[in-house]
Amino acid sequence: MVTEDGRGAHHVQSLERGLAVIRAFGADTPELTLSDVARATGLTRAAARRFLLTLVDLGYVRTDGKYFALTARVLELGYAYLSGQALPELALPHLERLSEQVGESSSVSVLDGTDVVYVSRVAVSRIMTVSITVGTRFPAHATSMGHVLLAGLDEAELDAYLAAATLDRLTSRTITTGTDLRAALARVRVQGWALVDQELEEGLRSVAAPIRDRRGRVVAAVNVSSHASRTTLEAARRDLVPPLLAAAARIEADLSMTPAAREHG
Amino acid sequence: MVTEDGRGAHHVQSLERGLAVIRAFGADTPELTLSDVARATGLTRAAARRFLLTLVDLGYVRTDGKYFALTARVLELGYAYLSGQALPELALPHLERLSEQVGESSSVSVLDGTDVVYVSRVAVSRIMTVSITVGTRFPAHATSMGHVLLAGLDEAELDAYLAAATLDRLTSRTITTGTDLRAALARVRVQGWALVDQELEEGLRSVAAPIRDRRGRVVAAVNVSSHASRTTLEAARRDLVPPLLAAAARIEADLSMTPAAREHG
Repeated sequence: MVTEDGRGAHHVQSLERGLAVIRAFGADTPELTLSDVARATGLTRAAARRFLLTLVDLGYVRTDGKYFALTARVLELGYAYLSGQALPELALPHLERLSEQVGESSSVSVLDGTDVVYVSRVAVSRIMTVSITVGTRFPAHATSMGHVLLAGLDEAELDAYLAAATLDRLTSRTITTGTDLRAALARVRVQGWALVDQELEEGLRSVAAPIRDRRGRVVAAVNVSSHASRTTLEAARRDLVPPLLAAAARIEADLSMTPAAREHG
Repeated sequence: MVTEDGRGAHHVQSLERGLAVIRAFGADTPELTLSDVARATGLTRAAARRFLLTLVDLGYVRTDGKYFALTARVLELGYAYLSGQALPELALPHLERLSEQVGESSSVSVLDGTDVVYVSRVAVSRIMTVSITVGTRFPAHATSMGHVLLAGLDEAELDAYLAAATLDRLTSRTITTGTDLRAALARVRVQGWALVDQELEEGLRSVAAPIRDRRGRVVAAVNVSSHASRTTLEAARRDLVPPLLAAAARIEADLSMTPAAREHG
């Protein structure tokens, strides 16, 4: 049995709506009124009020009576995921070493739907920092880590990705057709790493390498990003790729020794 | 109107239960069966199944038919909080400089109920790393950041904290009475920083300093932690506290210039 909106009969709509209320808060909107939340979620004011007050009861939201804001307790939910994953923590010392070697920020991400999601990151402090933290998402088609992760999919998975993804143009260089993307991924598979030059944002260059589990499946990607003004394409290939591949190998070695890898691998 | 369990009539029980299902997953239990989730949450198997399948629909949980696990999408929820806060990101370069100066991991946390919650952290890689990430919680009474945050409460807030907290004994040195804790907090207020020596865990020493907003309210704490084998109490006071206080001052200066601080401050 499937309901009108295509969800199964098991679907708990109140949970979906409550999670939408949490996601209504964000970088540009850390404080919202009841009306703001109703507008952002498409709920009635009465429904939005019930969800917000429930979240206040549970300690996930605080309010001064007019404005609502998330509390640090919301981090518990993401922490439930992060603490169960060996990779994010295991990768950190390797990212630190990599960032120290190349003087640039480095990250690990996984594929989630059509996005890459950052699960581990070491930021190098600069005057202009890039606002990326664990949990940040970017469309896979426009990022080096996305290319590496997509190159690791089998044919059926890649077909499903292309059916779901919109391949939006984010800069003049973004790959926006399935044919071009398939060609780029074929090169990544042969080469063993990906370079994306200003396809996500003007001025941003990034190289990425796959992290494989013991069965050889690509489970994550590691990258180093730089600014076009600091790093030419030639310098990226020459100076960033070798330390990146070495870091990926060290992360894979550590990952192969985790209990989960032994159990499933 | 209040229901039997003390919740207001507005309370959306399905949302509370769904969030409990997410929190059932964790470091030791990244993969759970339907029965595991029912047991951990106190739900019936039928109810647990509805919540799990709803979370699968929404992309927060994946399943192979038997085992369920959280996906990286869960990070979106915590990200909704983190991206709205200026402090975690703003503090990072200062934590990096601090950790580089003293060769130890440093963190920023906020008070949430009776716990401190880590919102920003720079880990120094060592053979024995401490498994702490953004979102980690520790009881405030046993940590240096907790002492700094509790010392910043007014009398009514501190009374409410002591009424709610259990002051569990975690090591032989943990402060477990309200009287002793009040005395320790009075010293922290005079001194301007806190040192906690193996009260959370044997071997763990930590110093913390308050981060104040423009109105002088303590809004967060910054710390440096070390092992007793590496750092004597005297060395902690002499070598860790001055760079810590300098980092706190730099974070406060940056925080005072954020738009939110200008708006509310």
